[in-house]
Amino acid sequence: MATKLECAINCLVEVFHKYSLTGGHPHALSREQFGKLLEKECSEFTKKSKKTVPEFMKELDINQDGFINFEEFLILTLKMVIEHHEDSHKE
Amino acid sequence: MATKLECAINCLVEVFHKYSLTGGHPHALSREQFGKLLEKECSEFTKKSKKTVPEFMKELDINQDGFINFEEFLILTLKMVIEHHEDSHKE
Repeated sequence: MATKLECAINCLVEVFHKYSLTGGHPHALSREQFGKLLEKECSEFTKKSKKTVPEFMKELDINQDGFINFEEFLILTLKMVIEHHEDSHKE
Repeated sequence: MATKLECAINCLVEVFHKYSLTGGHPHALSREQFGKLLEKECSEFTKKSKKTVPEFMKELDINQDGFINFEEFLILTLKMVIEHHEDSHKE
């Protein structure tokens, strides 16, 4: 049986594929797919950041191909987890 | 209610604290605490890597203080998630 950490790791991959496999390039998120992921999976983080989808795209799309690949998506998750860790010490 | 992605993010912080808060410095894992985390939370990844606890420490302890802090722990989780993502495309 997978541990909590292993489940979390699996989940990060599953969430990315949930949106990347809905059409277009299977290994990358279009702006539309990425916008849906932000809205459906991390709306609280997105709202708090006060950034728009194009602003997030600009920040994360390191290779500037107009898509968010898995490694670029991981930058988003790192930002989320660092913020959540900081918040956990404010509580 | 938290989404799957938010749960995964929370989980990464919880797993770190589960071991860091068992004694000593609350914001960092001693070699012993880190060894327990590797054994209990990601034994499959650890075995596959064929690395010992001291080898993992050497690789992750960027500031070389003899402890694994939260950011250093995130490097481990990134390695796990990148490996899991690659494996998902081999299946």
